[in-house]
Amino acid sequence: MAHINDNYLKLKAGYLFPEISRRVNAFVEANVSADVIRLGIGDVVKGIPRPIVDAMIEATEEMAHDESFQGYPPDQGQEFLREAIAEHDFAARGVNIGIDEIFVSDGAKCDSGNLQEIFAEDCVVALTDPVYPVYCDSNVMAGRTGEADEDGSYAGLVYMPCTAANNFTPKIPTGHVDIIYLCSPNNPTGTVMTREAMAEWIAYAKKEQAVILFDAAYEGYITDESIPHSIYEVEGAREVAIEFRSFSKNAGFTGIRCGYTVVPKELKGRAASGEEVDLHRLWARRHSTRFNGVAYPVQRGAAAAFSPAGRQAIQEIIAFYLENAAIMREKLRAIGITIYGGEHAPYLWLETPEGHDSWGFFDYLLNEAHVVGTPGAGFGAAGEGYFRLSAFNHRDKINEAMERISRL
Amino acid sequence: MAHINDNYLKLKAGYLFPEISRRVNAFVEANVSADVIRLGIGDVVKGIPRPIVDAMIEATEEMAHDESFQGYPPDQGQEFLREAIAEHDFAARGVNIGIDEIFVSDGAKCDSGNLQEIFAEDCVVALTDPVYPVYCDSNVMAGRTGEADEDGSYAGLVYMPCTAANNFTPKIPTGHVDIIYLCSPNNPTGTVMTREAMAEWIAYAKKEQAVILFDAAYEGYITDESIPHSIYEVEGAREVAIEFRSFSKNAGFTGIRCGYTVVPKELKGRAASGEEVDLHRLWARRHSTRFNGVAYPVQRGAAAAFSPAGRQAIQEIIAFYLENAAIMREKLRAIGITIYGGEHAPYLWLETPEGHDSWGFFDYLLNEAHVVGTPGAGFGAAGEGYFRLSAFNHRDKINEAMERISRL
Repeated sequence: MAHINDNYLKLKAGYLFPEISRRVNAFVEANVSADVIRLGIGDVVKGIPRPIVDAMIEATEEMAHDESFQGYPPDQGQEFLREAIAEHDFAARGVNIGIDEIFVSDGAKCDSGNLQEIFAEDCVVALTDPVYPVYCDSNVMAGRTGEADEDGSYAGLVYMPCTAANNFTPKIPTGHVDIIYLCSPNNPTGTVMTREAMAEWIAYAKKEQAVILFDAAYEGYITDESIPHSIYEVEGAREVAIEFRSFSKNAGFTGIRCGYTVVPKELKGRAASGEEVDLHRLWARRHSTRFNGVAYPVQRGAAAAFSPAGRQAIQEIIAFYLENAAIMREKLRAIGITIYGGEHAPYLWLETPEGHDSWGFFDYLLNEAHVVGTPGAGFGAAGEGYFRLSAFNHRDKINEAMERISRL
Repeated sequence: MAHINDNYLKLKAGYLFPEISRRVNAFVEANVSADVIRLGIGDVVKGIPRPIVDAMIEATEEMAHDESFQGYPPDQGQEFLREAIAEHDFAARGVNIGIDEIFVSDGAKCDSGNLQEIFAEDCVVALTDPVYPVYCDSNVMAGRTGEADEDGSYAGLVYMPCTAANNFTPKIPTGHVDIIYLCSPNNPTGTVMTREAMAEWIAYAKKEQAVILFDAAYEGYITDESIPHSIYEVEGAREVAIEFRSFSKNAGFTGIRCGYTVVPKELKGRAASGEEVDLHRLWARRHSTRFNGVAYPVQRGAAAAFSPAGRQAIQEIIAFYLENAAIMREKLRAIGITIYGGEHAPYLWLETPEGHDSWGFFDYLLNEAHVVGTPGAGFGAAGEGYFRLSAFNHRDKINEAMERISRL
């Protein structure tokens, strides 16, 4: 019988969000009349802005006619989209990224899970704890870890705990690592890295010849001009960092699927022979062989997100979600809950009230308030005692959820 | 410095189709006025049928409004699409496939490249030769092969040559293999497997406890009712076969990206411990952790491909491409070229004229007739001496290409 990839058997339970869905569905089936408010999975709820939808509809119509039909998308993405990205996401912030360094994809989740494939199995991986589960699980599946202990921490990974005690700032490892996953604004804690913190990581990565995989999927939520939106705003990052971006949380593309990855030409890895190899070349090979591009209408929509009207509409939606977060912070603080994040991010990170561990608090909120959040322990052992609430919902739902929680 | 995945360095040159694009682009730059006719990459050219485009536009419009907005797609795909697939692609042909056995994806290329990840590195892989390069390259990248020899054949793979001498029928291996890639109608040879041939493969896979990865991306082109469209039409396939399907070559989705994979619940693999493990469970974990679903408008479009109007329009487009193929067969035979395929597939597989190897014939056709095809050697060592022409083009281009080739 064909041998399976045994590394899959090391994975604890289901992927976090399907596991939450299963618990919520079970609750809803047993409580048909309950009006459940979902602040768990970080999924947006507002309609996609008109200029973006119009661009997608126009491009879809083009597909109906032989004269304007578009077949296989270009490997790395349409030039019109990569040019808009280079101009607005980078040049406008003083960063020079070539359009051949941009790889358009079906989302940052896929990219951040796929990227590890270009590295050797023996690379040492450093992760913050708590962490977005995909960074961890994709490395477990690839065989870069041993078994998990009872807290869900895998042998062989270097965990960097981020708790209130260290202000949610990952500490630079004392030893060597090869690959470092960083995310700012952070999922799940909602906190941000300062320019100085990024500079320290870049210095460490240079010293250790390590590669930083920087996830900037939530950069649109930064409201303080001193916080970098891209790691490339910090000197030296081009030599050590790959960056993931997404259209999900700004343009509302969770159900449309588009993101991109930047792999600067300076980045190198080492072959077993000792030879230095361009990581750009490896990722280009991975992308062209294992992926087949993003739908033309979707790329037209993503490009329209950079139009003046598109940018304006996105700013309004982000302001709306951040106002949700501000309301949530105020209401929850008023009932004595300790809260982090939610200022430059759509996520609030709460300390679970005494007597509740994080899955316990999940069940308690679901059963008593019919509100769904995400248990901190689902993001790693150091997430125990914390709980994530998402600000992605309609205002009346946010108000209602806060009222129900306040009543408990 | 972080170690790279050294297996990538075993890959020969670029992925085939980008390599062809590069050669064609170089020719076009040097010959600006040349009217190049592309019969190389198997990309469709006809507009997507109206009922499908209308469904996509309507669904895109839904995304503009808070009340009808759709966020993250369900892991395995929308139920309305999986129900349509189960009914029309399977039940209508007497095959019972559960909707929870269907995994909707962004295309058969991605699925057929990703699927190997759930298997162990020590699995022995059997491939036809010539073969769709993704099956091979994804296994090279995963470390299941040694180095390539000068013909581009990788050590450790079991190649099953398909040439005119054996009527392009892969011979059942004499020894043990764990994973077998089969494709019918075949890319690149354009030939089909009979029901009896499939039954022999199923018997072999049962005996060896091997898994068949069956690519049916071109099933829409089958014109002979005795040829199965799905391997599950043949007794016993549920216990040994995974099947890939695509909306690219029937609904014209090469630039939209949608396909699906069927993993029956009966399929098993073996863990190192000796325990039997459901492959369905492993693929579900891979799909939910490493992928994030297909855009809602795309799934609405795919579902509309199964409506009466959608099916009618698709039949007309397929008939058009098959008529192209018939014209090409006739014209090329008239000038003495030996041709296979093109009856139940959009591909013709030619013997290259004497004095030309397959890349030589590629350059000759490009330079002398300004016609782009695909060199057989690009699909494997046994493809040397052959050449693929695609029937995916407009009628006037097909006629013009045939005229130019006839004149040579």
